[in-house]
Amino acid sequence: MNRKLAVAEPFLTERHRKMIRETAEKKGFEVRIMDSPEEDRNFLNEAEVIFGQAPETAKVSTALKWICTPFAGVDKFLAEDAFANPEAMLSNSSGAYGVTIAEHTVMMLLDILRRQPEYRQIVAAHEWRRDLLVRSIKGSRITLLGTGDIGQETAVRLRAFSPACLTGVNQSGKNPGGCFDRILTREQWETVLPETDVLLMSLPGTKETFHMVGEKQLSLLPDGAVIINVGRGTVIDQEKLIRELKAGRLYAGLDVFEKEPLTKDDPVWELPNLLITPHTAGNMTLMHTVDRITEMFLADLERYCRGEKPDHLVDRKKGY
Amino acid sequence: MNRKLAVAEPFLTERHRKMIRETAEKKGFEVRIMDSPEEDRNFLNEAEVIFGQAPETAKVSTALKWICTPFAGVDKFLAEDAFANPEAMLSNSSGAYGVTIAEHTVMMLLDILRRQPEYRQIVAAHEWRRDLLVRSIKGSRITLLGTGDIGQETAVRLRAFSPACLTGVNQSGKNPGGCFDRILTREQWETVLPETDVLLMSLPGTKETFHMVGEKQLSLLPDGAVIINVGRGTVIDQEKLIRELKAGRLYAGLDVFEKEPLTKDDPVWELPNLLITPHTAGNMTLMHTVDRITEMFLADLERYCRGEKPDHLVDRKKGY
Repeated sequence: MNRKLAVAEPFLTERHRKMIRETAEKKGFEVRIMDSPEEDRNFLNEAEVIFGQAPETAKVSTALKWICTPFAGVDKFLAEDAFANPEAMLSNSSGAYGVTIAEHTVMMLLDILRRQPEYRQIVAAHEWRRDLLVRSIKGSRITLLGTGDIGQETAVRLRAFSPACLTGVNQSGKNPGGCFDRILTREQWETVLPETDVLLMSLPGTKETFHMVGEKQLSLLPDGAVIINVGRGTVIDQEKLIRELKAGRLYAGLDVFEKEPLTKDDPVWELPNLLITPHTAGNMTLMHTVDRITEMFLADLERYCRGEKPDHLVDRKKGY
Repeated sequence: MNRKLAVAEPFLTERHRKMIRETAEKKGFEVRIMDSPEEDRNFLNEAEVIFGQAPETAKVSTALKWICTPFAGVDKFLAEDAFANPEAMLSNSSGAYGVTIAEHTVMMLLDILRRQPEYRQIVAAHEWRRDLLVRSIKGSRITLLGTGDIGQETAVRLRAFSPACLTGVNQSGKNPGGCFDRILTREQWETVLPETDVLLMSLPGTKETFHMVGEKQLSLLPDGAVIINVGRGTVIDQEKLIRELKAGRLYAGLDVFEKEPLTKDDPVWELPNLLITPHTAGNMTLMHTVDRITEMFLADLERYCRGEKPDHLVDRKKGY
C-alpha cells in the first residue's frame, strides 16, 4: 500500500498546492489535496501525513503518524483521547501568524486610543466634529502577555512608536530577540499591572493560561487601560471583563472569545468600550501567512522524511 | 503703553497657560489668555505678539509684529492682504504634529488594507465571518509625498512593518534623517506611481501643490492602490479621485478635503472604498502635541525677545 499524504486547507492557492504536491510526490507519497476534510474522509483516515485541521481524523485514525495543523492554536488536539495512535506527532504553524496578528494588534490599539468607535458614529451622522481628546502609543506603558512570534513581531512594530516601556511576560524569563525592555515571569507578572496602560495578550489556550486575567488582575489595571486579546479567549475571565467594560473603567479590543463563534444574539456584540473583530487577526487571509505555513510544512516534511522530528512539534502536555 | 501678548487657543490646559503666562510676564508683556479670538478682539488688535489662529486680526492689526499659529497649515495667512502690517512675522507649529498624524496614518492604512470597513458591517450584523482576504504593510511599495516632520515620523513607524520600499518625494532631493530608501524630486516623482501600492500625502496646500495628484497621476497608480491624505485636501483633484473610488479601482483614506467642513449632505460621506476622518489626524487633541506647540512657541518667544527670528518662521511666498 502506498504511503499517503493528505492536504485539507481551503486557503491554499494553486501555487501552494502545486509546491506541496511536487515535493511530496518526489518523496514517494500518494498525494490528495482537498479544500476540507469532508471531501475525502476515506483517504484522510488512511493517510500517514496530514497537513490540515483534521482533529476528527486524528481521533480515529491508526494510520496517522504526523499531522501538521496550519493554525497556531492546537486546542482541538489536547484532549486525552485526541489521538487514536498515541505515537502520532502533532505540529503546528506557530510562527506564520506573527506578521498578520501584529498588524491587527497595532490597528486595534490605535483605533481604541484614537477613539475611532466614537468618531465612526460622528462620521456616520455626517457630523464634522474633531475635538475628542485622544491617546498615543508614544509614552504608553505596554505589557505583552506572551513573547513568542506574535509578541515579538508586535514589540518590534510598537518600538517604532516610542512607547515608554515594553514589558514581556513569559515562563522562561528570557528576552527573545531583545525585543522587550524587560521580561517578567508568570510568577512576577502581576506587579506590572498597576503600571500598565496597554495589556496585549497572545497566549495559547491551556490549563495554565485559563483565566490568567481574572477579576483580581483586571482590578489592578489603572482606569482607562486598554486590553487587546489576539490569543485565546479562555485566557480572560470574560464575565469579569464585561463588568469592567460596562462600568466604563477599561477598554478592550477582542479578536477571540471564551465561546466562538459568537451567536447572533450574544450581548457581547453590543457592549460599550469594546472593539470586536471575528477572530480575523490571524486567519489565513494574508498571502504572506499562506506562504509561511507552506514553507514551514515543506521544511518539516523534509525533516520527517529524514526520520527527524518536525521543527514545529507540539508538546501535547504543555499545549503549545 | 504696555507691550501686549495674546493667547487664543482652546486646547491649552491650565498647565500650558500658566507656563506661557509666567514666561511672557517675565519678558515684560501684559498677557491675556483666551479660548478664542472672539473673547477679546480689542486686546488682540493691540497685541504685539499673538499665539493663536487669528487671521482676522492679522488682516487688520497694525500693532501685530509676530503671530504664531498653533497649527502646521498656514493656508489662511497666504492671501496678499493677509497682513495689515507687511513687516509682521508669521510662524507655525509644524513639527508638533508628526507623532499624532503618523499614528493616524498607520491606523487608516491598516484599517483599509485589513478591510475593516467591510468587517465592521459584518460585525454590525452580528455575523461571524472571517474569510475576506487582506493585505499587509509588509512587502508594500510605499510612496510618501512630503518628507517633513509628518513624513519622517510616518516612515520611521512604517519601517518597522517591513515594507518593500519607502520612497520619499520632496523638492530638495535630500533624504532627511535617512528615513527613506530613496528620494525623488517633484520633477521625477510620477515615475514611481506605477510601482506604488500605497501613496501617503502630507503636503501643505500651496499654489505648487494644487491638484498635484490629478487625473493623470491617479491613472498611473496600479489597481487596488491605497491613497491616504493627511496634508491638505487641495493637493488631490477630489472630483477625479471620486471617479476612481466609484469605479472601485482605488481605495482612499481622507482626513482632509478640498472644501472643509464637509456639509451634512455632501455625497462624499457615503462614497465606496473611502475611509473618512473629519480632519482629526493632526488636531490638538493629543497631549503630546499641546506640549510640543507650547515648548516651540516659548523657545521662539525667547528668540523673538533677543531680536532674533522665530525658528518656525513661515516663508509666506512659499507657503510653509
